[in-house]
Amino acid sequence: MNIGVVGATGAVGREMLIELEESSIGPMKPKLRAFASKRSAGQMLEFLGESIQCEEFSLQNLEGVEYVLMSAGGGFSRKNSMDIANLGIQVIDNSSAWRLEKGVPLVVPEVNEAALEERGPGGAIIANPNCSTIQMVVAVKPLKDAFGLKSINVSTYQSVSGSGQKGLNELASQVRKSFNSQPLEPEFYDQPIAFNVLPAIDRTDDEGHCFEEEKMIRETRKIFGLPELEVLATTVRVPVFHCHCESVTVELAEEVSLEDVLRAFCDAQGVNINKENDHKSFPTPLTVVGKKEVYVTRVRLPLDQKKSNRVQFWIVADNLKKGAATNAVQILESLIRNKAEL
Amino acid sequence: MNIGVVGATGAVGREMLIELEESSIGPMKPKLRAFASKRSAGQMLEFLGESIQCEEFSLQNLEGVEYVLMSAGGGFSRKNSMDIANLGIQVIDNSSAWRLEKGVPLVVPEVNEAALEERGPGGAIIANPNCSTIQMVVAVKPLKDAFGLKSINVSTYQSVSGSGQKGLNELASQVRKSFNSQPLEPEFYDQPIAFNVLPAIDRTDDEGHCFEEEKMIRETRKIFGLPELEVLATTVRVPVFHCHCESVTVELAEEVSLEDVLRAFCDAQGVNINKENDHKSFPTPLTVVGKKEVYVTRVRLPLDQKKSNRVQFWIVADNLKKGAATNAVQILESLIRNKAEL
Repeated sequence: MNIGVVGATGAVGREMLIELEESSIGPMKPKLRAFASKRSAGQMLEFLGESIQCEEFSLQNLEGVEYVLMSAGGGFSRKNSMDIANLGIQVIDNSSAWRLEKGVPLVVPEVNEAALEERGPGGAIIANPNCSTIQMVVAVKPLKDAFGLKSINVSTYQSVSGSGQKGLNELASQVRKSFNSQPLEPEFYDQPIAFNVLPAIDRTDDEGHCFEEEKMIRETRKIFGLPELEVLATTVRVPVFHCHCESVTVELAEEVSLEDVLRAFCDAQGVNINKENDHKSFPTPLTVVGKKEVYVTRVRLPLDQKKSNRVQFWIVADNLKKGAATNAVQILESLIRNKAEL
Repeated sequence: MNIGVVGATGAVGREMLIELEESSIGPMKPKLRAFASKRSAGQMLEFLGESIQCEEFSLQNLEGVEYVLMSAGGGFSRKNSMDIANLGIQVIDNSSAWRLEKGVPLVVPEVNEAALEERGPGGAIIANPNCSTIQMVVAVKPLKDAFGLKSINVSTYQSVSGSGQKGLNELASQVRKSFNSQPLEPEFYDQPIAFNVLPAIDRTDDEGHCFEEEKMIRETRKIFGLPELEVLATTVRVPVFHCHCESVTVELAEEVSLEDVLRAFCDAQGVNINKENDHKSFPTPLTVVGKKEVYVTRVRLPLDQKKSNRVQFWIVADNLKKGAATNAVQILESLIRNKAEL
């Protein structure tokens, strides 16, 4: 097996190597090749105990590669993914470039693994959803399956690692400046992020929605196969290094009790359900960082109601893990498993 | 005019002195007396250019005082407010002790000033609502009045100053420890707050609601005079020193356009509406700190809809100002104005 990781030196790329090692693919001892931009080529990375030198990406360089895990941004992907696929290589792309394209499966294995079959013959592009979308659909899926889904209202609390290394650097440097009474000149974000909350992520359109919200809305509809689903999203950056949190309200097709909902979460794949209403046990970014599952907590019905078709809950997941690298590697595992079964 | 501030050395108490100075009451040169616990008595505070020595609180000490602004916690208020009122003194209490009590007006002057008239004769207790409630009802009021209100769904992003000086100290000390590779042992909160998000505020009940959420729900119903109003709330602590943010969705009785909604916000008292969909101009905790108004931004309808009965927006306000001290002083201004008109 011959796997290429494109964008291997980035925040998500590095996690992809770790996830490959720790997945069912690691013991198969795949040949791994790491690709990056000219600037980062030559860097050494570790994989399964061996040092790998990062190569400069080019189509010619991909000879022999069967699968490409790609995390190199939307512009790069739009320019290159189709050409890579046309070489007969399976591309799993972490950018937003192809997610809403017809014929490109948008996959969270716990939720819609079967959509992988919709890809074209030979090489093809498979899209990894947005980080905030992934953790939400994993948590909403069991409720949708058990009770039917009418709408979702979500507000996010997203960490700076969602912006990659530049976001991590910006928060760290501004916090240091803040404690040294230096001005917090923003460099990467448009306003300071240290000790602040930025109420939109990515560019904002004329109707007031930011691109991150549009992603969550349209991707969720595609993944669930519910093109008319009402999804209201507010995406927000908070001064946290790792993990995204989400405050979620779902409207279900039937009235449920708290016990019904907890049972559905307990049986769900990829969900770690916390039933304790205890401030010490609530999962938080600092306790969930590095974990592969989606942590669900604070499950409740509207105040004073014993049954309701509205359910509220809180979710936390590591956006570089399940929100990106873990999910991409799970897609690859699924492709390999299905190939073996043929 | 003779005003007493009880809890004058606390985070809110200090803001009350500033708000009194800057309000229409300042130029009336009221006599001000500052009260605190035995531990803090003797501290010197500034008011209208003069030094005032903080006195230990006792009922006997209140002779001559006509109005008491109180921010000394719920337990203290439950124990003392009624006795103070029975001396013929008007009490404006910032704690949660009396807010839901029948006959105690719960007042945000821009929203329900008339409720002040429901207080008993002579001395009485008037309650200042919860900080998160105040900023939300100021923003929702113009939409409720113009279009009718069916439900509210809110997720908060609350700063540590909501926990007073202890919260401010905890965040600052943990950030310093974090940058010195020391363990973040929580002292005040149950889990570290530095670079973290804590998904509940105050104790949590068996059904999963935390007390801060119950406050927002029940207080909003009382202030709006809508005892059956559906309010869904998720209250969350973020690692920010000052100002609370809220992601709000309202369901209205009629379908509206974005222009309809913006017009309603423009005409609203106490609201500062930002119409720019521009990351540089969004109000944030760092730009709103110290301000007295409620900042509304990111107003929008559900994606791709030109008319809807659902409206989403983002609000930011300084929780020690409009969320506490400013509102309490506005109540006092209203009492004094109404007395003058009699």
